[in-house]
Amino acid sequence: MSKQQAIGFMDSGVGGLTVVKEALQQLPNESVVYIGDTARNPYGPRPVSQIKAYTWQMTNFLLDQGVKMIVIACNTATSAALAEIKAALPIPVIGVILPGARAAIKATRNQRIGVIGTQATIKSGAYEQAIHRKAQQMTVFSQACPKFVSVVESNEFRSPVAKKVVAEGLQPFAKTGIDTLVMGCTHYPILRPVFQQWLGPDVTLIDSGAETVSQISMLLDYFEIANDQPDTPPMEAFYTTGSPTMFAEIASSWLQLKDLTAQRVDLTQLPQEKR
Amino acid sequence: MSKQQAIGFMDSGVGGLTVVKEALQQLPNESVVYIGDTARNPYGPRPVSQIKAYTWQMTNFLLDQGVKMIVIACNTATSAALAEIKAALPIPVIGVILPGARAAIKATRNQRIGVIGTQATIKSGAYEQAIHRKAQQMTVFSQACPKFVSVVESNEFRSPVAKKVVAEGLQPFAKTGIDTLVMGCTHYPILRPVFQQWLGPDVTLIDSGAETVSQISMLLDYFEIANDQPDTPPMEAFYTTGSPTMFAEIASSWLQLKDLTAQRVDLTQLPQEKR
Repeated sequence: MSKQQAIGFMDSGVGGLTVVKEALQQLPNESVVYIGDTARNPYGPRPVSQIKAYTWQMTNFLLDQGVKMIVIACNTATSAALAEIKAALPIPVIGVILPGARAAIKATRNQRIGVIGTQATIKSGAYEQAIHRKAQQMTVFSQACPKFVSVVESNEFRSPVAKKVVAEGLQPFAKTGIDTLVMGCTHYPILRPVFQQWLGPDVTLIDSGAETVSQISMLLDYFEIANDQPDTPPMEAFYTTGSPTMFAEIASSWLQLKDLTAQRVDLTQLPQEKR
Repeated sequence: MSKQQAIGFMDSGVGGLTVVKEALQQLPNESVVYIGDTARNPYGPRPVSQIKAYTWQMTNFLLDQGVKMIVIACNTATSAALAEIKAALPIPVIGVILPGARAAIKATRNQRIGVIGTQATIKSGAYEQAIHRKAQQMTVFSQACPKFVSVVESNEFRSPVAKKVVAEGLQPFAKTGIDTLVMGCTHYPILRPVFQQWLGPDVTLIDSGAETVSQISMLLDYFEIANDQPDTPPMEAFYTTGSPTMFAEIASSWLQLKDLTAQRVDLTQLPQEKR
């Protein structure tokens, strides 16, 4: 295990790039390998067993790239597969749900927290459980917003369609009195301005990805695997199971990296469990 | 290993209580066992081999209390013994230096950071190394302030003596242009108002203890040992090798816990290494 090995990030598509963006800022010495399973996106409506199988395929792909740590930068995959994968691997594996839950508890002033996510994430109850385990007094309102991911993956997040879909999706929160909303899907921060406009300035939006990167930083230190030889410039590599052109377009705009390229890979032949 | 076991904190005296104060606020479900080696305080002027031996004795005492995690809430002991103890034990062990270094890098705007600590901490160069490993561009000014700990341990931190000792100790920073000062000793936050008055409002003081508790919180989650059964009320137990009365007086005033009692213990018969 070398400290210069990359950190592996995975997501059902481009959403995990919101976590990578934070990582590039907070951890400039670290190399990054990213796999987005765009071809099989969205994960949210799929059964848990399938999400778990796909997440293992992404995990095995990242292990083949020799990563030193794995970040499941996808709430759906975290809720379905984090516990199993973390227990099975010798390298650190972290998800996005606990950091988001912790940040929401810290941010709320009226103890009323909203959570939005994919169907699978909301159905799992993972955020609600994580919040209540730490702070029983919180009232949590959860809402699946199945249409948001497609708006982001189809690169329509600046369009009027986005505004309409967000208004419909957030409507259930209108009378809840929440002062904090967890964006419980790593695709959602791309829609952040649209959310904030609909919710007004008094609601704090929690980006679980940004919180996750603080945790990554601490764990790199804890396990003594942070790259402390910054003379070797860090590398970024992006892989997708879908269209590399579309992926690279969204990624280079979101990460503000010029000359970003993505490679297409096939995950379907990889094991759907620990090998 | 039960999630309801306590977190063990150790320090050369009362300084680690600044970390416990944060823990009581941020982690209200967690039980706390504290050992302060007041009788052998200060650690700062002692040789590294001796600090290491004393730190192992505190560690063995905490292990006897059945703690689930050990926090070396003492910069001197962290710089001398964290690496060895962490590598030797099956439970998580964390120190206060890396969290403080991380916070200072985040806080500074002009990249000029001051560090104050005991002779042993400053001589070890631990903060300087930790800061430079993460951010080579920082200029770090380090200064040992051997008199500060005694002012705190003797309960004189509100007296004119404190003001005079602080002015002398911080004098070397007068022309450095630092905008951030790491209080690299857990005793020092008790002197915080005196520091801030001397430094003026534009210098950010970093309390490595507060930063450490955020890391404790994350590691409790990561290792899945946070107490999630808050129905059992958490307990606090305080042990000192010195005067229990004096210890309890400082501790109950600092932690704002009424009816706080401390027990005297003898560490000298415990092994000075892993048993």
